[in-house]
Amino acid sequence: MSRKFAGKICAMLGIRYPLFQGGMAWISDAGLAASVSEAGGLGILTSVGETAESLRKSICRVRKMTGNPFGVNIMLKSPNVQELAKVLAEEKVPVVTTGAGNPVPFMEGWVRAGIRVIPVVASVASARFMERYGASAIIAEGTESGGHIGETTTFCLVPQAADAIRIPVIAAGGIGDGRGMAAALLLGAQGVQIGTRFLLARECPVHAEYKRLVREAKDTGTMVTGRRWKKPVRALKTPFTSRLADKEDRDGSPSITVETLGTGTLKKAVQEGDRERGCFMAGQIAGLLDREQSAGEIVEEIVTQAEKLLGIDW
Amino acid sequence: MSRKFAGKICAMLGIRYPLFQGGMAWISDAGLAASVSEAGGLGILTSVGETAESLRKSICRVRKMTGNPFGVNIMLKSPNVQELAKVLAEEKVPVVTTGAGNPVPFMEGWVRAGIRVIPVVASVASARFMERYGASAIIAEGTESGGHIGETTTFCLVPQAADAIRIPVIAAGGIGDGRGMAAALLLGAQGVQIGTRFLLARECPVHAEYKRLVREAKDTGTMVTGRRWKKPVRALKTPFTSRLADKEDRDGSPSITVETLGTGTLKKAVQEGDRERGCFMAGQIAGLLDREQSAGEIVEEIVTQAEKLLGIDW
Repeated sequence: MSRKFAGKICAMLGIRYPLFQGGMAWISDAGLAASVSEAGGLGILTSVGETAESLRKSICRVRKMTGNPFGVNIMLKSPNVQELAKVLAEEKVPVVTTGAGNPVPFMEGWVRAGIRVIPVVASVASARFMERYGASAIIAEGTESGGHIGETTTFCLVPQAADAIRIPVIAAGGIGDGRGMAAALLLGAQGVQIGTRFLLARECPVHAEYKRLVREAKDTGTMVTGRRWKKPVRALKTPFTSRLADKEDRDGSPSITVETLGTGTLKKAVQEGDRERGCFMAGQIAGLLDREQSAGEIVEEIVTQAEKLLGIDW
Repeated sequence: MSRKFAGKICAMLGIRYPLFQGGMAWISDAGLAASVSEAGGLGILTSVGETAESLRKSICRVRKMTGNPFGVNIMLKSPNVQELAKVLAEEKVPVVTTGAGNPVPFMEGWVRAGIRVIPVVASVASARFMERYGASAIIAEGTESGGHIGETTTFCLVPQAADAIRIPVIAAGGIGDGRGMAAALLLGAQGVQIGTRFLLARECPVHAEYKRLVREAKDTGTMVTGRRWKKPVRALKTPFTSRLADKEDRDGSPSITVETLGTGTLKKAVQEGDRERGCFMAGQIAGLLDREQSAGEIVEEIVTQAEKLLGIDW
C-alpha cells in the first residue's frame, strides 16, 4: 500500500494538507476560513444567514486574505438556497460542500462553473448517490459530529464508504488531533474534516462562553436531541438541551430542526453565549479539547502528529 | 514514537496478537474462544446462562483445546454472579472481562487468584474508576458495538481514555478488519476487541439465520432501542426491533434489558434464528462483513492487514 494516503485529494483541490475545516453555520466566517486555507488546509466559509450580496462580500474577503483554495458550505434547506447557489457559481468558488438536503438540482451548474462539489453524507447509499451525480469527493460524517447528524459512527462509516465508491472519502466526526487524522486515513479516508476543534481557534468568532463550554466538556459532555423526529442534533449538554430532551421524552414536542437554525438557537449560542436559550452544537470530541490556539497552529499540530504516526510526509 | 504499539498488553497476557474476541452472551462458547486463543488472539468465553458447574466444564473444555491464555466474560447482573465469580477465582482463569455492572466487589478476590481483570467501560470516568480498583487494562467500548452500549463512539472514547489512564486501553466497537485494528492502535489503544466479525466464524454456534442477517446487513442495518430507559441496546433491524422501537416511541413500554437477556430475546435469535421474536445483537460494522471464515483465518487476516498498514511486526 502506498503510504501517500492523500495525494489524490490534495492534487485535486490544490491544497497542501488533506484537512478541511468544517463549514459551521453562523460560525465559519471569512477570517476563520482564510486562516485555515492560508495554513495549508481547506478553509470553508458558511453561507447560513447570508444574503446573496453578503455572501459575495464574504467570498471576496476570503480571497483578499489568502490566495489558497477554499470552500463554501451551503445548507440546502436555506430559504434562499437558489440565490446563494447562483452566487457560488458566479464566483466560481473552488469547492462547495453541501449539507441538509439534496444538492443534485444545483450540481450541474456548479460543476459547469468548474467547482468541486463535495457533499456531506451519513450513509453508504448517499455516498453512492452523490458519486453518480458528479461529486468530486464526499465527506462521510459520523454520528459523533456536532450539529445535524446521522446514526453511523466514523469508525463504521468511513471504511464502508471507501469500499463503495471510487471518489475520495473525507472523514468527519470525532477527529480532534493527529491521532484521529491518522486513524481516519488508515480507515480508508483520503482526508479529514474537523469542526469542533476549530471552535477553539482564536480566529473563531463564537462567544467566549461557547469556547469555555467546549474547553470544559468531558467525553460525555454532548447529547443528542430530536431522534424521535428523525432529526437528531448533537450539542453540548446545557440547561437548554436538558429541557429539550425532557420535553422530547415526555410529550414529543418538536426539537430544534434544520429549518429553525436560521433564526434560532444556534445563533443565540454563537452570538450571545446564552446557556438557557442557546444550542451549543459541538461534536463528542469536545472532551479532548482544552485550549485556544490560532487556526494555523491547530492545522500544523494535527498534521505534524498525523505524519509522525503514519511515518509519512504529505 | 515506538511502532511497537501493543507490546505491553501482549507481554502482560502472554498472547501473540493484541486481538480479543468479545465475550458475547449465549454465543462465545468454548469452541469459539479456544479457536481464537489457538490462533494467537485472546478468546473469551461467555458465562451467561451457565451454572457454576457448567461454567467449570466450559473452562475445562477451553483448556483441553488450547494451551494458550483465554478469558471469561461475566455479566455482573447475572442472578448467579456470586457463584460464577467464585468459579473464576477457583479456576484461576487467565483473564476476566466484565460487563453490565460494577466488578469492584469481586476484583480483590480475582486479583488475589492471579487473574487479570479487564472491565468493559463506556466512559472516561469508568475507565479511571476501574484503574483505581485494580483493573489490569480496560476495554473502551464505543456506541457502535452490538448489545448493551454507551453513547460515546470508539473514535472519541479511545483517545480520551488513553489520555486519562496509565493501564492499557483495548478498543471495542466498529472494528471489522485490519483497517479498524490499525486505526484503533493509532488512536491510542494497545489492542482491540472484536465481536461482530466473530459471529461469522465457522466455529461460532449461532443459528444460520443469524449469520445470514449479519452477512446481508448494510451500514445502516442496526438500530438502537431502549434509549428512553437509559438502557440502549444495538441489534440488527428486524421485525422484532421495529416493533420494539414503535412501542418505545409510542407508549414507552420497557425495552429489552440486561435483566431479561438470560431468558430472552437474544437466546431466541442465537438458538432459533427467530426474526419475529429474537433480538439479533450486532455492531454497526456488520455492514462491512460478508463471509464466513474460520476463527483462525479471521485473526490472521485482520492482524496481517493491520501490520501492513502500520508497517510493524508484533
